[in-house]
Amino acid sequence: MKHKIVRIQFDTKSGEPLYLQLFQYLKECILNEEIIYGSKLPAIRSLAKELGVNNITIINAYKQLELAGYVTSKQGSGYYVSKRLRTSLSPSYTPKSKEQNVINFGSVSPHPEIFPVETFKQYITEAIDRDKGFAFGYQEINGYLPLREVLTTFLSQTYNITTCKKQIQIVSGGQQGLDIIAKSLLYSGDSVITENPTYNGAVEVFKSRGCRTVPVNIHSQGINLIELEKKVRICKPKLVYVMPNYQNPTTFCYSKSTLLELLKLAETYQFYILEEDSMCELSYSHKTNLTLKSFDTNDRVIYLKSFSKLLMPGLRMGFIIMPSTLCESFTRTKQATDISSSGLIQRALDLYLRNNKWYEHILYMREIYKNKYEYMLEKLEMLEKYNIQFFIPEGGLCFWLTLPPHLSAEKLSAECLKNGLIILPSPMYFSHLDSFKDRHIRLSFASCSFNEIEKGITILRHCLNTLMN
Amino acid sequence: MKHKIVRIQFDTKSGEPLYLQLFQYLKECILNEEIIYGSKLPAIRSLAKELGVNNITIINAYKQLELAGYVTSKQGSGYYVSKRLRTSLSPSYTPKSKEQNVINFGSVSPHPEIFPVETFKQYITEAIDRDKGFAFGYQEINGYLPLREVLTTFLSQTYNITTCKKQIQIVSGGQQGLDIIAKSLLYSGDSVITENPTYNGAVEVFKSRGCRTVPVNIHSQGINLIELEKKVRICKPKLVYVMPNYQNPTTFCYSKSTLLELLKLAETYQFYILEEDSMCELSYSHKTNLTLKSFDTNDRVIYLKSFSKLLMPGLRMGFIIMPSTLCESFTRTKQATDISSSGLIQRALDLYLRNNKWYEHILYMREIYKNKYEYMLEKLEMLEKYNIQFFIPEGGLCFWLTLPPHLSAEKLSAECLKNGLIILPSPMYFSHLDSFKDRHIRLSFASCSFNEIEKGITILRHCLNTLMN
Repeated sequence: MKHKIVRIQFDTKSGEPLYLQLFQYLKECILNEEIIYGSKLPAIRSLAKELGVNNITIINAYKQLELAGYVTSKQGSGYYVSKRLRTSLSPSYTPKSKEQNVINFGSVSPHPEIFPVETFKQYITEAIDRDKGFAFGYQEINGYLPLREVLTTFLSQTYNITTCKKQIQIVSGGQQGLDIIAKSLLYSGDSVITENPTYNGAVEVFKSRGCRTVPVNIHSQGINLIELEKKVRICKPKLVYVMPNYQNPTTFCYSKSTLLELLKLAETYQFYILEEDSMCELSYSHKTNLTLKSFDTNDRVIYLKSFSKLLMPGLRMGFIIMPSTLCESFTRTKQATDISSSGLIQRALDLYLRNNKWYEHILYMREIYKNKYEYMLEKLEMLEKYNIQFFIPEGGLCFWLTLPPHLSAEKLSAECLKNGLIILPSPMYFSHLDSFKDRHIRLSFASCSFNEIEKGITILRHCLNTLMN
Repeated sequence: MKHKIVRIQFDTKSGEPLYLQLFQYLKECILNEEIIYGSKLPAIRSLAKELGVNNITIINAYKQLELAGYVTSKQGSGYYVSKRLRTSLSPSYTPKSKEQNVINFGSVSPHPEIFPVETFKQYITEAIDRDKGFAFGYQEINGYLPLREVLTTFLSQTYNITTCKKQIQIVSGGQQGLDIIAKSLLYSGDSVITENPTYNGAVEVFKSRGCRTVPVNIHSQGINLIELEKKVRICKPKLVYVMPNYQNPTTFCYSKSTLLELLKLAETYQFYILEEDSMCELSYSHKTNLTLKSFDTNDRVIYLKSFSKLLMPGLRMGFIIMPSTLCESFTRTKQATDISSSGLIQRALDLYLRNNKWYEHILYMREIYKNKYEYMLEKLEMLEKYNIQFFIPEGGLCFWLTLPPHLSAEKLSAECLKNGLIILPSPMYFSHLDSFKDRHIRLSFASCSFNEIEKGITILRHCLNTLMN
């Protein structure tokens, strides 16, 4: 490691302080993993000597690194490179531009061309004309009242979920929901159980609260209940985070018996369940998907739903159904987070729901997605000869593929990217890595045209040929 | 304390589990401070005996309280009522409804009737027609590029601040800015120095990160630099949080020499300064206000600005100018917080700025506010006979009044509320309370008409008469 640092070339003409140059250089080394996580930075004096600079230059550079979160200092011992999560800058959220040539099997957002833009524009205008300045003022912290009212009706009629307007907290999208729930409930040292694999953006939020995340394996009927109970007894989690429908990334759906057993465990061991539901509506078979919340007689489930996957991600809208004991704490956290969500968008969404456009839109999206799903499924069947296996989810927006032994998902995804295709490799979904976990890829058809799906699979086959020969 | 709990009357007919009834009851006791912070809950067995219920009923109620954050359990010792901040549900953010009869000297938001609603409606429509679905898709995490570009031009031309589009992070309002900065920089055990008194919504964010906040007194020229340096040496803060222009709540502005000294201290002791600037534009004299950021040659200042006070709070828009060493960390936190801010509102704001509407609007607001400021000032002068003192800020949206000795600000504000006037008492702005700190009130004219200002001051005088006789 020292050798690498010694290679720094100071630019003495630029006028930039030496310590800032050293900081930038060390930062790059850490980000490129040339200096690995957990390792100790060289002692101040010896590095100063090697580089021919003052001790204070090294000290200032190290302090900058500490302030920026790259290293932590341990009293009397020195500076250590901080443990950081794998970057979460996932292509799931890459905004699509019209010029983009890359085919994106990573994104689970609908393509902007099928957004209900005109309808929304109409409701936005209607809301402004009706409420004028009040549409741009501060809102109730827990959300625009008429929207919370229409949501409760909607949840009862369509989702078989009984709740009341007091228990609804409007949030600016699913990710903010996770952030608010974590900040309300979790403190440094708490344990959270997650499915394994799981959504890394949630893990990042839990870790940011100083929590320990404990993974429990998931199979095609849901979370492994025996492993779950064992781990619950040991780590006494405050929260168990699950996605019972088209789990991200595996696409598995929980069976009814798993849902009921999970609720029983929550009652026995007194933990809350965070149910994230972004697309239970997207069943392409005759099966109706079940939510945990609809069976939640003991108010143990925190239900989080976003409008990003089924409507438009840029709305930044979602909601939480809060257990009654947590309402006050959640709303208080929402205020400290961003005071309230956009009143204008809440008003437009309220009109959209009241005019039954949401239901029409779901039917429309289901039709579009179903066709793409079937098309990708058909193309995937051609991958059999590569010894690739996958689960058929009968809904949702993704396929989760298992690669043959010895084929690295990360290598495959790097090869695909070189050839103009984004796929998501499994390591980003596992919090505890081993080589076995580098064997899956997630493919989504959500934002692709039929033509792109076909081209993408061709690229994938080409890359498989390259790597397997 | 035990006596109080024993008074619970269980409703055995309602079917609601006894433990939930006990939970609700205890929660109310804690919120009403009938059970005070830090005190220990009764031992499980003895309380079960006194109430004539099962041990498990008590255990379940205590566990519910713990999950909801009202108590913490200490291994082997029992349950203790958690230290909680004073509620931050401040009337500053109460949405105004047309029917409201109460006069609100608490709110610092402009009245919705003077919002530039039609102009914004036009730009929203223009953005949708131009970008269609892309206006509703995911955005760049750090913000819509053209908006960041126009902001840099604007900052250089109007604010004498040199920055680049890479160093700008768009946020959903000032409060989210505080949350993102805290989550990026601060970890459990870190120290943050704040002005004393300060904005309680910021303190709440710092505390939520497990930080210690260390208050340093502020006077009419800015933060007390001697006290600051002394405390910096002791607590080695990562961050010093200041509002150099029309500080909330005191309305003080920093002198140039205080700004420069503060920057020197930041360099000497290697801390970052968070400068929150919500209204430096609102000078009603010939004086031009100075920002710390414009003197920040060493990239020590994190500058946070919101469009809530001067434009419309419901936009939920603001931005951070990030020191270059922190860009990556801030943007990563923004993603984990809510992926990105509304692309539609960012586009409309971009058009608004590009068409020079912002500058016109500031002149317009300054004119409106100046008249209200002068009107309130005139009325306040009538309070002299009550031995009330106040600083004349020559700008901003508030007055900070010092009451005569022995008159409690909290009692006065309670009396005012009974008579239909909201004023904000000083204890909410001090993190460490003593009786001396219960002697100030903050009055804002921002959301009031001339008529309301007059009526409000009349109510205040009436209440002063009541309490001082």
